[in-house]
Amino acid sequence: MASTRVAVVGATGYTGEELLRLLLHHPAVQLTYLAASAKWERPTPVSDVFPRFVTHLGCSDLLIEPLDPARLLKASDAVFLALPHGEAMKLAPALVEAGKRVVDLSGDFRLRAPSLYPQWYHLDHAAPAWLTDTRVAYGLSEWCREAIMKAKLIANPGCYATSILLAVLPLFHAGLVEDNAFIVDAKSGLSGAGRKAETSLLFSEMSQNLRAYKVNQHQHMPEVLQGIEQFTRRQGRMTFVPQVIPVHRGMLSMIYLRTRATLEDVMAAYQRAYPAERTPFVRVQAGRLPELCDVVETNRCDIGIMHDGSGQLIIASALDNLTKGASGQAVQNLNLMLGYPETAGLV
Amino acid sequence: MASTRVAVVGATGYTGEELLRLLLHHPAVQLTYLAASAKWERPTPVSDVFPRFVTHLGCSDLLIEPLDPARLLKASDAVFLALPHGEAMKLAPALVEAGKRVVDLSGDFRLRAPSLYPQWYHLDHAAPAWLTDTRVAYGLSEWCREAIMKAKLIANPGCYATSILLAVLPLFHAGLVEDNAFIVDAKSGLSGAGRKAETSLLFSEMSQNLRAYKVNQHQHMPEVLQGIEQFTRRQGRMTFVPQVIPVHRGMLSMIYLRTRATLEDVMAAYQRAYPAERTPFVRVQAGRLPELCDVVETNRCDIGIMHDGSGQLIIASALDNLTKGASGQAVQNLNLMLGYPETAGLV
Amino acid sequence: MASTRVAVVGATGYTGEELLRLLLHHPAVQLTYLAASAKWERPTPVSDVFPRFVTHLGCSDLLIEPLDPARLLKASDAVFLALPHGEAMKLAPALVEAGKRVVDLSGDFRLRAPSLYPQWYHLDHAAPAWLTDTRVAYGLSEWCREAIMKAKLIANPGCYATSILLAVLPLFHAGLVEDNAFIVDAKSGLSGAGRKAETSLLFSEMSQNLRAYKVNQHQHMPEVLQGIEQFTRRQGRMTFVPQVIPVHRGMLSMIYLRTRATLEDVMAAYQRAYPAERTPFVRVQAGRLPELCDVVETNRCDIGIMHDGSGQLIIASALDNLTKGASGQAVQNLNLMLGYPETAGLV
Amino acid sequence: MASTRVAVVGATGYTGEELLRLLLHHPAVQLTYLAASAKWERPTPVSDVFPRFVTHLGCSDLLIEPLDPARLLKASDAVFLALPHGEAMKLAPALVEAGKRVVDLSGDFRLRAPSLYPQWYHLDHAAPAWLTDTRVAYGLSEWCREAIMKAKLIANPGCYATSILLAVLPLFHAGLVEDNAFIVDAKSGLSGAGRKAETSLLFSEMSQNLRAYKVNQHQHMPEVLQGIEQFTRRQGRMTFVPQVIPVHRGMLSMIYLRTRATLEDVMAAYQRAYPAERTPFVRVQAGRLPELCDVVETNRCDIGIMHDGSGQLIIASALDNLTKGASGQAVQNLNLMLGYPETAGLV
Repeated sequence: MASTRVAVVGATGYTGEELLRLLLHHPAVQLTYLAASAKWERPTPVSDVFPRFVTHLGCSDLLIEPLDPARLLKASDAVFLALPHGEAMKLAPALVEAGKRVVDLSGDFRLRAPSLYPQWYHLDHAAPAWLTDTRVAYGLSEWCREAIMKAKLIANPGCYATSILLAVLPLFHAGLVEDNAFIVDAKSGLSGAGRKAETSLLFSEMSQNLRAYKVNQHQHMPEVLQGIEQFTRRQGRMTFVPQVIPVHRGMLSMIYLRTRATLEDVMAAYQRAYPAERTPFVRVQAGRLPELCDVVETNRCDIGIMHDGSGQLIIASALDNLTKGASGQAVQNLNLMLGYPETAGLV
Repeated sequence: MASTRVAVVGATGYTGEELLRLLLHHPAVQLTYLAASAKWERPTPVSDVFPRFVTHLGCSDLLIEPLDPARLLKASDAVFLALPHGEAMKLAPALVEAGKRVVDLSGDFRLRAPSLYPQWYHLDHAAPAWLTDTRVAYGLSEWCREAIMKAKLIANPGCYATSILLAVLPLFHAGLVEDNAFIVDAKSGLSGAGRKAETSLLFSEMSQNLRAYKVNQHQHMPEVLQGIEQFTRRQGRMTFVPQVIPVHRGMLSMIYLRTRATLEDVMAAYQRAYPAERTPFVRVQAGRLPELCDVVETNRCDIGIMHDGSGQLIIASALDNLTKGASGQAVQNLNLMLGYPETAGLV
Repeated sequence: MASTRVAVVGATGYTGEELLRLLLHHPAVQLTYLAASAKWERPTPVSDVFPRFVTHLGCSDLLIEPLDPARLLKASDAVFLALPHGEAMKLAPALVEAGKRVVDLSGDFRLRAPSLYPQWYHLDHAAPAWLTDTRVAYGLSEWCREAIMKAKLIANPGCYATSILLAVLPLFHAGLVEDNAFIVDAKSGLSGAGRKAETSLLFSEMSQNLRAYKVNQHQHMPEVLQGIEQFTRRQGRMTFVPQVIPVHRGMLSMIYLRTRATLEDVMAAYQRAYPAERTPFVRVQAGRLPELCDVVETNRCDIGIMHDGSGQLIIASALDNLTKGASGQAVQNLNLMLGYPETAGLV
Repeated sequence: MASTRVAVVGATGYTGEELLRLLLHHPAVQLTYLAASAKWERPTPVSDVFPRFVTHLGCSDLLIEPLDPARLLKASDAVFLALPHGEAMKLAPALVEAGKRVVDLSGDFRLRAPSLYPQWYHLDHAAPAWLTDTRVAYGLSEWCREAIMKAKLIANPGCYATSILLAVLPLFHAGLVEDNAFIVDAKSGLSGAGRKAETSLLFSEMSQNLRAYKVNQHQHMPEVLQGIEQFTRRQGRMTFVPQVIPVHRGMLSMIYLRTRATLEDVMAAYQRAYPAERTPFVRVQAGRLPELCDVVETNRCDIGIMHDGSGQLIIASALDNLTKGASGQAVQNLNLMLGYPETAGLV
């Protein structure tokens, strides 16, 4: 594989750090430019910022520097944007126009209707025309490989959205969801909140705690409903209770829905959606629900199915919010865009 | 308040330890006999077993000793049994016959039908006639104070059962639950599993993990359904997904059900069930879901209600599995039996 | 016991919260005024700020309000100051002049030499004359009860200082420390850093981490050396390596020093310093080192001693940094000042 | 690199699991045989035992099976033994005689004097002649590469021993340790205790705890002293206080010793011992002490040095007890034995 020059913008957050963890070992990628925000104080060796990346791989002289758009353009062929919401929408269009492949890990290009941004992201979109531009693809890898391969800008899905869509799309696609309604009781590790200085995220607040937040108001909710509509042409109805639990990484969405189908029909729908030979990162099992430890630090989504015999389905969808829920899927999408094997650099 | 001589049998488990924590400070109780199982090696000062109970309260010369039924009878007026399932059914009847007040924290007297024990507890009941004996009361304090006050033997409810029943009984009572059906996505601290040497409970297995277990097969399930029938004469239908999360203590049951009632009607049902002046340990709030840290080390159950406006209710019921879910409610029940203030020794 | 009207200023931090936990149950204290800082937004019921303090004790209508010095003076007879360093030095003198008993939990009155403040606290002292005022006492309860009983303002010791001084003073007093030198390898729970919005204290940063900080530069270091000089007239030499570990509360100082004394001589020195009947909160054991769980949520300091037979002593001193290391000792000191039993409200 | 057929015996413990994590991605290794103990129930796919190793790498059909020595011999060229103490001494000699390269991760071949085994391991050695056999080498990679390259059986060092020896050997070698004496205050993650069903290792016991154990009695103590003698011809004197803290993996040994050397001399000794180009896995820094998160999941040992200017050195040596402290160093040693690059398969 030829090597692609890759930049990471937002390298000091949790998803940025996870991108480094993956890309330092990617066989066809050369990290050439790492930026924090423009406010970052001064160029700093990556091994000072993240000593665990001191390495014999020859990358220890990489610097993390204040974002300089001109240097970014010059130094990279592909760019990961791992910035807070509202930042990528200002940067990405120019990068695409300049011929870069871009994977954006924020929510800035996920929703197609500009009018949704004020409600769900509390901001007006700075580049609304791009939301429906043909060069942009939603990056749920298993469901839109072809679009991703042709796209220049990937809207990498949200962590909750990935775990929920991978679990419910096969059932919606097969028309097996009664009333198109489902309930999601989701639990996330605290890295999902980002490396932010907030007292509610302190060790002392959370080490023995569980907290629900943004009930039916989380910004991944319209993303899930849009995804159901995009991939199955159905209108889903969702009850969504996100919760944080005292783990660093990992996410499990417990999904409740009713069906008239048998377990066999349900499993057949999953097998059609995720043939083992084509979807190495999705595993579906009947009768066993995954634990977080089954997926942490992998790019897999593990889905477990239980059917109570009288119409109630219980679906557990587990993934690592930093890997398949963010940076791992972002690398998977870069692989697709660049024509590399989908699994390059991923486990 | 006159002082009652109290014994704890099973003092070395988590619920036994919690009983000690509470009873050492109870204004009307004198701890006079502490036993582990009959296999416990030799009498050991409680302050050697639990150094945190070294205390200036004058109890540090208490011993924990191998269970000796004769000494138990002689030394106590009231007995807490905090033993594994299957043990209390052999001990409690004789204690009651000897005139002791008994609070059993196991499942041994919770289910009224002996036939349920093989299925849910994997044992045949050794004293089936006692399950419906008039001297026995189910100890869900807020729902059967009168029965508890008259009883000699209290079947102290399970932790999940307490958190679920306190949350759903007012709605079943008012007939507000569509199809009498509800879903419980419950998360428990690991102390709920007891102080047992099992690799699945090791720090290294659980410190960054979440695990569902006994889906629709947990022994608190028939207890909940029996409680709904006992207190509201309705037949509930329950989907139950218990999960362990990496906290020591605390439990949150997230309950999903559909209703045709408005939020006002729902709250009115709770207020009728739990008038503030009579139920100091239950608090119900609309619009805010409790966190674990709101209730840990208290005897309270905090219930939060959200209504999505189109028929879906989300109810979070939080308590400390060792306190209101076990030993605290046990003390509350002893208070009721002995005519003490219901809150004596509890916060 | 007559009841004293007590105020807590700084009620929303970890030591303030711990003061509430203790004082809500203190038999001779009535909480009459709770303030955060002057920047606190608006009066808020304590049960909204800390739902776990919803209580049947009749205190749930207490408010936490923005600090108003006039109201503070009017509403209280005794005041706990639980503020960041630099704040109490501005408030305490006027409170004392107005006849209040004051316990300050910050470092503002701990060091007697004003010149030490710029170096160790990075500030100039605003009331330097008070550092040696006769109305001020250093509040290491077990070592200066008489001074505390006469004082108007207590400089409540630091958490590390308490754990170290209680462990080494008996040996310095008896002249058993070779070269007067000792090494302290101390581990603290993260609550010691306060409820501060800093990324280094996030759950995700610390949940699987250990970090040394302020090596030989921690502000409790001159406090320890001053305490050794004050109580034993000796000049100690200390190597100090404080570390944070992923627990919420609890502190263990592992102390290494050399001695020519036998273990019997060493234990005799401790027994003279801490006779069981007079020092209910200090326990010393030979041959067993305490664990954190032995002391968490108690006001005790547990000290374990091991002697290797060739001159090396290993001393583990464990306490709860929020209780004996801060708020518990503060209550103990208030008890002493007010003539209450030293153990009132404490376990 | 040609591919070597590798077996792991003891694949279900923490060090066995870590070997799988590393070897699944090793460029020159083919895993051909995985065994638990002979008591393991039946052959089970590795992806059922460890779902996180479900993988697209083509290894998901690997089985973990009850140990069958005949199959082990037939299926492998090199063998990792990751068994409890006392087991490898029965297996390893025959494997070596049969021409296999063996890396033993237990303590069975670490101590050269058979007489030490009853005292430190509580067993009589079953193959005492092998302790000094020329085919055996102690596997502290950085200090005996040549011996390892020639050996057939590697005694892979203990985790504490690795972290301590890497830190003190350069100073002993240079003669910079006053009185040849040092103190080690070591903190280990709980995986160091192995995947053992013991109540003292439960999440509920340890999640907010710290516990010292085997003070001056840990079996890595004679290993450290032997290593000092072997590599520097000096007799060290060691005070050793191992402690467990609530993390899964990671170890930090805080070492205190006195020296007459300057910091420059000290650093020069380290630089001579660990030239960057030859020792990619050891990093030494003055003035900054490593945190656990700097090394977790890497094969590095990070050493930080502070000198107080008056003779006291503080040395923090951090590594991952499962990687550089066990399985990572084991792979490093296999690489040396087989002539692969020392860093193959390691980061």
